Amino acid sequence: MITLYELQGNGGRYYSLFSWRTRMALAHKGLEFESHPVPMSDKAAIAFSGGKTVPILRDGEAVVRDSWKIAEHLEATYPQAPSLFGGAIGHGLCQTFNLWADRTLVPAMLPLIVADLHERVDPEDRDYFRTMMEGFLKSKLEDTPAGREKGAERLGRALDPLRAALKRQPFVCGAAPAYADYIVFSVFQWARVMSPYKVLADDDPLAAWREKLLDLNSGFARNVPAA
Amino acid sequence: MITLYELQGNGGRYYSLFSWRTRMALAHKGLEFESHPVPMSDKAAIAFSGGKTVPILRDGEAVVRDSWKIAEHLEATYPQAPSLFGGAIGHGLCQTFNLWADRTLVPAMLPLIVADLHERVDPEDRDYFRTMMEGFLKSKLEDTPAGREKGAERLGRALDPLRAALKRQPFVCGAAPAYADYIVFSVFQWARVMSPYKVLADDDPLAAWREKLLDLNSGFARNVPAA
Repeated sequence: MITLYELQGNGGRYYSLFSWRTRMALAHKGLEFESHPVPMSDKAAIAFSGGKTVPILRDGEAVVRDSWKIAEHLEATYPQAPSLFGGAIGHGLCQTFNLWADRTLVPAMLPLIVADLHERVDPEDRDYFRTMMEGFLKSKLEDTPAGREKGAERLGRALDPLRAALKRQPFVCGAAPAYADYIVFSVFQWARVMSPYKVLADDDPLAAWREKLLDLNSGFARNVPAA
Repeated sequence: MITLYELQGNGGRYYSLFSWRTRMALAHKGLEFESHPVPMSDKAAIAFSGGKTVPILRDGEAVVRDSWKIAEHLEATYPQAPSLFGGAIGHGLCQTFNLWADRTLVPAMLPLIVADLHERVDPEDRDYFRTMMEGFLKSKLEDTPAGREKGAERLGRALDPLRAALKRQPFVCGAAPAYADYIVFSVFQWARVMSPYKVLADDDPLAAWREKLLDLNSGFARNVPAA
């Protein structure tokens, strides 16, 4: 029995950015799991993990936290299921790519959707979320939509190498999707579930790629409604 | 017999940025090769390839141009030798990484070293190089050193995810170097061979990593003198 501890938004929205990496990895491996949503502000609910953030995976006796460590756990524990990394070199390069995404894509996407995120987090998380994000962004949430045009340009620049790659091959990982695709996808799914703001033009190669990711595993990600 | 057509600088300097990816890939595969240096401005010398840029690899009957295509050729032609990509997923992700490096690291490094490059290219390439680079950078070569402080910050930001990765694992590709390491290394080797400008602080995790790359294959890359 696998349980995924993740954030739950208002109205049962599964919006947890890093948990989407885990969700897609579990689906890729063909593993069933049960979601256990917790409010972002309720640290007691996840104290058993020894940490303060989700995702946390409970897999039998094992408790693993941090989406990257969870991916490594799934790859090591279920080697017969489709591979997330494709061996040692892909594994190492994917860790580098994961850090690039966290330091480049995530901060470029956040300001574009943060005001919408605030409206859709669990109501008991609102104040906690506002304090954390306004401290991080050094800006009032209400002021962030005014910066969207500039923010969209920044995101566009960050996405440029991915766009170039997707003109040459169907997925970030080549002919078929693997964990690095899910890393990028998590950022778009976070936006899709929580914000009506259009982050990709229809003719962007990334838009077609995102549709393919939404279709995977019988629409596993598409079945979670968009904002 | 393998021949590598590449740029040669003044005094026999092997400085060709993209050729260093090929050089390291050839060494990784344990393949002997002969270097055939050509001036950047002499397009007739490489017309046989059907293109206007080096590197070009002549491997028996095969003529392959573009460092990425050459890496794919070497991986497909010499599958028994150590792998550059580690399989399909690593191959696909490495193409994405290659595009990231070309669009992020290369343009961040260029303005820091371009004036020194100009001094050290083949004398018959100087005017060609100046015209091309001043058009590209929209700046006189002589004005570029004044922008180094800002340029170094830009390069530092671009390198940040790699630095974070190298705190977690010894190489960009994990426990051992592979093609994505050589992609990054090529940018530093280009700088090392052509410019006395110090692009990395001694305590930067990338500096220790670069030393390890310089040591590979009995100092294959270190044997080319620094500027």
